[in-house]
Formats: sequence, structure tokens, C-alpha cells
Amino acid sequence: MEREPSGPIARLMHELGKLPGIGPKTAERLTHHLLAASRPQVYALADALRAIKDSIRPCRQCCQLTEHELCDICADPRRDASLICVVEQQRDLAALERAGTYRGLYHVLHGRLAPLDNMGPEQLTIDRLVERVRNGGVQEVIMATNPTLEGDGTALYLSSLLAPLGVRLTRLARGLPSGSVLEFANSQMLVDALEGRRSF
Amino acid sequence: MEREPSGPIARLMHELGKLPGIGPKTAERLTHHLLAASRPQVYALADALRAIKDSIRPCRQCCQLTEHELCDICADPRRDASLICVVEQQRDLAALERAGTYRGLYHVLHGRLAPLDNMGPEQLTIDRLVERVRNGGVQEVIMATNPTLEGDGTALYLSSLLAPLGVRLTRLARGLPSGSVLEFANSQMLVDALEGRRSF
Repeated sequence: MEREPSGPIARLMHELGKLPGIGPKTAERLTHHLLAASRPQVYALADALRAIKDSIRPCRQCCQLTEHELCDICADPRRDASLICVVEQQRDLAALERAGTYRGLYHVLHGRLAPLDNMGPEQLTIDRLVERVRNGGVQEVIMATNPTLEGDGTALYLSSLLAPLGVRLTRLARGLPSGSVLEFANSQMLVDALEGRRSF
Repeated sequence: MEREPSGPIARLMHELGKLPGIGPKTAERLTHHLLAASRPQVYALADALRAIKDSIRPCRQCCQLTEHELCDICADPRRDASLICVVEQQRDLAALERAGTYRGLYHVLHGRLAPLDNMGPEQLTIDRLVERVRNGGVQEVIMATNPTLEGDGTALYLSSLLAPLGVRLTRLARGLPSGSVLEFANSQMLVDALEGRRSF
């Protein structure tokens, strides 16, 4: 006996419901909010959505999505161009930038190797990375793929391609997350923490 | 040291962050999802947003937002036109329709009387409701405003306007929420439940 408003209202609920973490209840709540919102506000959101598809493209160097041909980071002369940090996704880059200590450049793979999901090397920006390293000037490539089976696999594959080019290859440290308690660390965290222990 | 992508990406995050229940973290996650999503999908969402402002208007009878001049419910000859259920918001109507038992018509106030928020009778669709009742054919008006101070105040005000028109005025029952446990009911629920007790 469910009887929802037909047409545009149902369509908006449907489209919002496709977003990650937005279930039918939230989609309905957002739709009712937007119905009551002012026209300029709703238009601003619609325009912002279109804009990311109309005016955003991959940076020709690091492949992060940007509105310029060369992204702000690659174009910044204060960044250390001899360092490349390889990340799976743009959001990983955003997280690292928020941390605020890294001053090198990035390379965004736009995914990780995942044969089961049909993600092979040709779906990623790997060729572009190899080309960057081959062009010279790069001293170190930091693998910042996720500490997961697929992330590690991707890093391993990349290192096999880059090692012959004579560049230093590193990966992010693993261990206990800062601010956590040992009691709740899982065994892999503890294995990593022991393995990577450092002297005072 | 925060350094976010400038331009369209930041703008979309900003617009998404204005939505209720969507904080900066969620806005960022949604933005990264949409950056990776296909152009048709993002356009579909943008178009659905514009559509609710371009093709939606209040039903000329019950004031719910609809794409037609007369909404689906008001236009349905199987609905009982002698019954009007008054709700504050369209989402309240949607909740009642989902319950599936009510077969009368609605009236959407688009708010409640709230002097502190500058919501007076002229901001609501009260005139239209009085006119509907005055036009005849209505036997009962069910007040389904929220069981809050402002909702009750709005229902009281409406009943003072409608009582002289000789229509039956009722309000939704109050008591224990079905499926709840008495132990956790607050005192107002228990007062309502005792006051409204019925014989087996």
C-alpha cells in the first residue's frame, strides 16, 4: 500500500538514494528538506554537481582531478618535485594534505589492482607514473596505497616496475595507531608494531 | 595548514555540507564519490534537483507539493473527501500514507505556529484550509500536527477557527508507542496513556 509522490519528487529520492551511506530514509529526509529549501540554494547544489563533471579533469602530471591542466600541488614551486607519494584515491591525497607535513608531489592511481573487480594495470594511471619517474628528477617514490591485501599488491606491482629505474622506493610505516590503546589493537597491528620497532 | 582542492570541488563540498545531517566529513566523502561517478549519474542528480524547483508547486486544494495542479491524492475519486487530515509538513503526509490506513484527504500547513521563529498564521496555508471547510462537504478535520508545544498550539488555533463552521474536530491519539517498553516511556507518554485509556 506504499504510496509515494510520483514524478520529480520520487526521482530525486531515487537519485539521492544512490549515494553511498544514504539510505531510503535519509534520501526522503533530504528530499523534503530540498523541497522546502529556496530555489537559489537548490540550483547552487545542482550547478555545483554539473560543474565537477564539466570543468574537472585529471592533472596532466599527477592525475588528481582538478579544474586546471596542472593541479595546484604540481604547479606549486615550493613543493619538492623529487618526491612522489602514490595514493589510490583523491581522498587519500586530501587526508595526507590535511595532515600537513608532506611537501612533495603526488600520483593518484584512481584505484588499486583488483583482478576480481576487473581492475588491472591498464585501468589505473600506472603508465603515467612510470613515465614521470623515467623522465628523471624523481629520487623517491613513497607507496601510500592502503594497508590492505589489494593495496599491498598494487604497491608490490608498482615497485617491480619502478625498481629498474633506480629510484628509491618506500612505503608508509605501519604500527599502532596514535592515540589508540594496545589492549584493543588487532594482532596484525601488533605484528607490524613489533616488526617495525625503533630504538629510543 | 589545511589545503583543500579549490574551485568546483570545494564548492560542491560546501553545498553538500549545507544539507541536514551532512557534516564536512560526509560532504567530502560524497564529493569524492561523485568525482568518480559517471557523468550521466551526476547529471541525473543535478537534473532531479532542478526539476523539484522547476516543475513542483503546491496542490491547489491541499497545498502539498506536486507536479500537477491537483495532487494525486486530491485527484483520486476513491479517497474520502469528507475527511481532512491536517499535517505540518509534507513528510508527515508521506509517513501517514506509508501507514496505509487513512483514506481521506490532507491539508499541508507547511509549518507550525512559532512566534519565536516569526511563523504566524499568514506564513501557513490556514486561509486555504478554512476556505475548504467553508466550501462544504467536509465532515471531520483531524489535527495531525506534531505532539509538541508548537504543534498543539497550532491545532488549538485551527480548532478555534474551524469550530464555528460546524465541522467535527479530532486529533490523533496519544499514548505508548507500539512496540516500546513501559520502563523507558517518559512521564508525558504515561500521562497521555493513562488519560486516554480505553476499556477492553
